[in-house]
Amino acid sequence: MSPPQRKQRVAVIGSGNWGSTIAKIVAENTKAHPDIFEEEVRMWVFEEDIQIPESSKHRKQLGDQTYKLTQVINKVHENVKYLPGITLPGNVVANPDLPATVKDATLLIFNLPHQFISKTLDQIKGHHLPYARGISCIKGVDVSDGTVTLYSELIMEKLGIYCGALSGANIATEVAAERFCETTIGYDPPPMDLNKPHSAPEDNLIKIDVQRQKKSKATRIHLEPMPQEYPHVDSTLFEDLFERPYFHVHCVRDVAAVALGGALKNIIALAAGFVVGKEWGENGKAAIIRLGVLEMVRFGRYWFPKSVEERTFTEESAGIADLVASCSAGRNFRSACHAAEKGVSVDEIEKTELNGQMLQGTSTAYAVRDFLAKNDQLEEFPLFVSVHGILEGTAKIDDLPALVSKKRTARS
Amino acid sequence: MSPPQRKQRVAVIGSGNWGSTIAKIVAENTKAHPDIFEEEVRMWVFEEDIQIPESSKHRKQLGDQTYKLTQVINKVHENVKYLPGITLPGNVVANPDLPATVKDATLLIFNLPHQFISKTLDQIKGHHLPYARGISCIKGVDVSDGTVTLYSELIMEKLGIYCGALSGANIATEVAAERFCETTIGYDPPPMDLNKPHSAPEDNLIKIDVQRQKKSKATRIHLEPMPQEYPHVDSTLFEDLFERPYFHVHCVRDVAAVALGGALKNIIALAAGFVVGKEWGENGKAAIIRLGVLEMVRFGRYWFPKSVEERTFTEESAGIADLVASCSAGRNFRSACHAAEKGVSVDEIEKTELNGQMLQGTSTAYAVRDFLAKNDQLEEFPLFVSVHGILEGTAKIDDLPALVSKKRTARS
Repeated sequence: MSPPQRKQRVAVIGSGNWGSTIAKIVAENTKAHPDIFEEEVRMWVFEEDIQIPESSKHRKQLGDQTYKLTQVINKVHENVKYLPGITLPGNVVANPDLPATVKDATLLIFNLPHQFISKTLDQIKGHHLPYARGISCIKGVDVSDGTVTLYSELIMEKLGIYCGALSGANIATEVAAERFCETTIGYDPPPMDLNKPHSAPEDNLIKIDVQRQKKSKATRIHLEPMPQEYPHVDSTLFEDLFERPYFHVHCVRDVAAVALGGALKNIIALAAGFVVGKEWGENGKAAIIRLGVLEMVRFGRYWFPKSVEERTFTEESAGIADLVASCSAGRNFRSACHAAEKGVSVDEIEKTELNGQMLQGTSTAYAVRDFLAKNDQLEEFPLFVSVHGILEGTAKIDDLPALVSKKRTARS
Repeated sequence: MSPPQRKQRVAVIGSGNWGSTIAKIVAENTKAHPDIFEEEVRMWVFEEDIQIPESSKHRKQLGDQTYKLTQVINKVHENVKYLPGITLPGNVVANPDLPATVKDATLLIFNLPHQFISKTLDQIKGHHLPYARGISCIKGVDVSDGTVTLYSELIMEKLGIYCGALSGANIATEVAAERFCETTIGYDPPPMDLNKPHSAPEDNLIKIDVQRQKKSKATRIHLEPMPQEYPHVDSTLFEDLFERPYFHVHCVRDVAAVALGGALKNIIALAAGFVVGKEWGENGKAAIIRLGVLEMVRFGRYWFPKSVEERTFTEESAGIADLVASCSAGRNFRSACHAAEKGVSVDEIEKTELNGQMLQGTSTAYAVRDFLAKNDQLEEFPLFVSVHGILEGTAKIDDLPALVSKKRTARS
């Protein structure tokens, strides 16, 4: 077989601190692997008028006038608003035009706040290459109306392209500063990508069970094969795209667990915060983490029985490592800890200490509790349900040991 | 079948802070289950002359004269020297005479520093009931001369009784203060205990592979059946003996992993300390914990292939939870963190900050490295080996990311 004549072109959709960090990583690697990737990495930026912060080293050069954020990024190679102090490689090119950013990209990396994803996908639709492949770096899952939907699934459905997920113990600013960490990529290539060049007609269909409640409804998506002139898209290619000396990548096929870990950990981090706020010490926190992993596994196995592997939760960065980090340094953990120390509700802490920002963990706890209730599964998830009860004021932190007692949390 | 006519009698061997805490738990439960257990719990105390500390609430009553430690424990129901401030149940009876303590005990709970275990077993031998059953709460394993030996195995060999293990995220003073935590009991009942009353003659033999290096040598131990007048000894009985509202017990059959977790975690806690001392943040620490669990699993699977289950490490308190707690609060973690912050060796910290006490992690790291070298397994355990290298001064903390890169730490 002759070597591929074309190269993969990467676009990053989103430019917050995590989006900009991922663009940095990816651009370092497109430069390092010129045989596989086009060097230029386009990054879609939601355009804003900004001023250079006084603390910025670019303030002297650029003064106090107003600029477009994309202009500044392309001029000084720094996202001075969302990732200040970090130099982006020169081959990251900020673009405020979404259709222009995606139009000839073969690899789409999604990295934006989940509340904007749906609208952004509507704007991309019809402008992207039909055979592009995607990776979602969006944390969490959509849990609503008795259904769990992975953002990677939403992307697949709306754009008709195959999409995996990336998640891990990755606090953006620490990764941007090139401090050692790991991440997990979930990518389960569709059969057409595995079998090429001998793919069967049914290989370009991929099935998503979008309704996971009692009345399950599957959606079939027709995928386009990527032309054979391009390097083959598989987990090796994504390792080349994301692996850095300070950012170790493990690839698994279990996309669902990778995405679920990033959502469910926030509920557990609240419980860990409660326990530490009550001064129950490291033993107690460790017990909550352990119980939390078991409920993550159970949740994954129950709703994604065909794809979820337990060890994605127990052994991967997107599972146990992200959970451990969130139970030490995350905002959910700290807020719950403050609430328990002061004897006030988490709601109160959200209002008084977080400048109107909402905690991911509280909304996830409510959504998951609602979801479990609709599916008659409350008894199987005593920790998740207890966290909701504590948030609601119907359960007490002091009752946690009894609520999660081993009679209700046996292995099976 | 008629109900048992006799009751189980419990003796605790050892009375440090963990030994006294376990005696407290066990004595609360012998009182709670008078149908199964004799209420009195004898605790063997290494006799010492002590004075009541000035800070003790008993100082006023007892003054500044010299007492025997056993006398004080039995008088004020407090181990004023090793577990001050915690009231022991009145049915804990301290005894300085080892043969007298064990002589009619059917359940022996071992809880003393590992350096005293061998000598203590020699003193027990011949004075205990031949059909007694044991639980070892001794942390760690004996790794020497290319061999790993569990303390529970040493007990089985020396006393000819079956012995399980208890371990978990259990900082003694926090458990004694009745703060919520969990533990794991590994107990794999010998066939004779399972099959009674129809046991076959070979059921009273139990095999231990004491030499796990290339030349494996098995020891066969002849067990005595416990008379049928006693309540049946199985994991349910140990749950009754150890479970408290603040101390949740999970029983597994995998004794080896329960014991190994408590030893290997100390090496990993050193690595976590190095990373945090270098200010690599929570991401980096979480990565070390994740990699550590994988090496624990690999170590267990390699040397105890017949008995070790991965999930004892990934899902039980004796595995992941104990590791997480040790990587936040343990002495090994803190010492390594100080060493990295100050740019000095752990050796230096041991000498200057620990009053001559030795860290468990450093000796385990040396023993495990030696053991791995003798078994040609260095390449399979990059994290364990790197920690040894850093202690030795032949590796640098900054090289850890490269040393544990994914090429060397793939799953299988």
